[in-house]
Amino acid sequence: MKFYDCATAPSPRRVRIFMAEKGIEIETIQVDLAKGEQFSDDFKKINPLGEVPLLVLDDGNSISQVTAICRYLEEIYPETPLHGRTPLERAQVEASNGQLQANGMFAAAEAFRNATPGFKNRAAPGPHDYAQIPELAQRGLLRLDNLFSDLDAHLAESQYIVGDYFSVADISALTIIDFARWVKKSIPENCTNLKRWYDLVNARPSAKA
Amino acid sequence: MKFYDCATAPSPRRVRIFMAEKGIEIETIQVDLAKGEQFSDDFKKINPLGEVPLLVLDDGNSISQVTAICRYLEEIYPETPLHGRTPLERAQVEASNGQLQANGMFAAAEAFRNATPGFKNRAAPGPHDYAQIPELAQRGLLRLDNLFSDLDAHLAESQYIVGDYFSVADISALTIIDFARWVKKSIPENCTNLKRWYDLVNARPSAKA
Repeated sequence: MKFYDCATAPSPRRVRIFMAEKGIEIETIQVDLAKGEQFSDDFKKINPLGEVPLLVLDDGNSISQVTAICRYLEEIYPETPLHGRTPLERAQVEASNGQLQANGMFAAAEAFRNATPGFKNRAAPGPHDYAQIPELAQRGLLRLDNLFSDLDAHLAESQYIVGDYFSVADISALTIIDFARWVKKSIPENCTNLKRWYDLVNARPSAKA
Repeated sequence: MKFYDCATAPSPRRVRIFMAEKGIEIETIQVDLAKGEQFSDDFKKINPLGEVPLLVLDDGNSISQVTAICRYLEEIYPETPLHGRTPLERAQVEASNGQLQANGMFAAAEAFRNATPGFKNRAAPGPHDYAQIPELAQRGLLRLDNLFSDLDAHLAESQYIVGDYFSVADISALTIIDFARWVKKSIPENCTNLKRWYDLVNARPSAKA
């Protein structure tokens, strides 16, 4: 297998942390998003969507999207499951991860891409160009504020995002919070439960991935 | 189990079609979103997020989010799998479904909620109020145009969204295309592959759910 990565980007980092937690090592190829390498003819042959992360299997099939890559790797390397251990826990992890994607990852991406000069006509990822909407950048910042307070309230009664179980939802939340710094948002002082959780998760060796 | 539904809303319809495909019958309670019943004290006791669909288990635990509910039901009722039959196919279904959520369901929701008078401060679902952004409604319409052409190109070479296999990704795409009518978008005449696929999927008895 080959893993197409960009060391500075938040989405592929979710896969890198996932692999570090499970001790998976895969040949990794860097795609420099800052230089636009994802839109080069060479890379578009590999992924027409022009996105990383991407996992290319030995038979030539490829898998895009963070959640799909992590699910595939979990099937191939089932030890230390990170998607849940029971049907209910798996559903809870899926629900939390989906909400973090919608209310966290997309909020940070909206705030970043709609306000950063280098993304002038690239306000959304993928193959299509979209003009920036300054008001959407502002809404993204507001959504991040709400995410911090919602997570803080949740973590007052829960060790990790899903009970006492470290999962892909924690990986998503850690990545989102670090990504939020790109738009100058960090955990507010009064969010002590979220800070406690962040320190716990950020101290894991995988957080360096 | 109890299924909290809203017969007119697109998200719970995805679960209804899923259950119809698998022949699952669950006691169903209607929550009238048009009347704001999701924000009533009674319903907020059941789901503090104020969202449907919601699945409440016999032990009192509940599962929110379409994808989490469908995954849970697939584990409990494994016959006629709709999330894939092999690790690769499951990853492909997950990737397609995630992209349909981001580029289709969210695009239609952005177009609808940011332009409909009744959603004045409810431009995003969930517990927080956000003001409408008219430009985002316009972008949503543009994203739906791109979705139609992207799906049309894909379905030129694929019977269903993922090869010859009917999956949750087809359920999502069908629901999105019907939801797009709310913002007066329908499959363009020249998208003959998408039209062929729509007629095929829409003819299944589950589409009436």
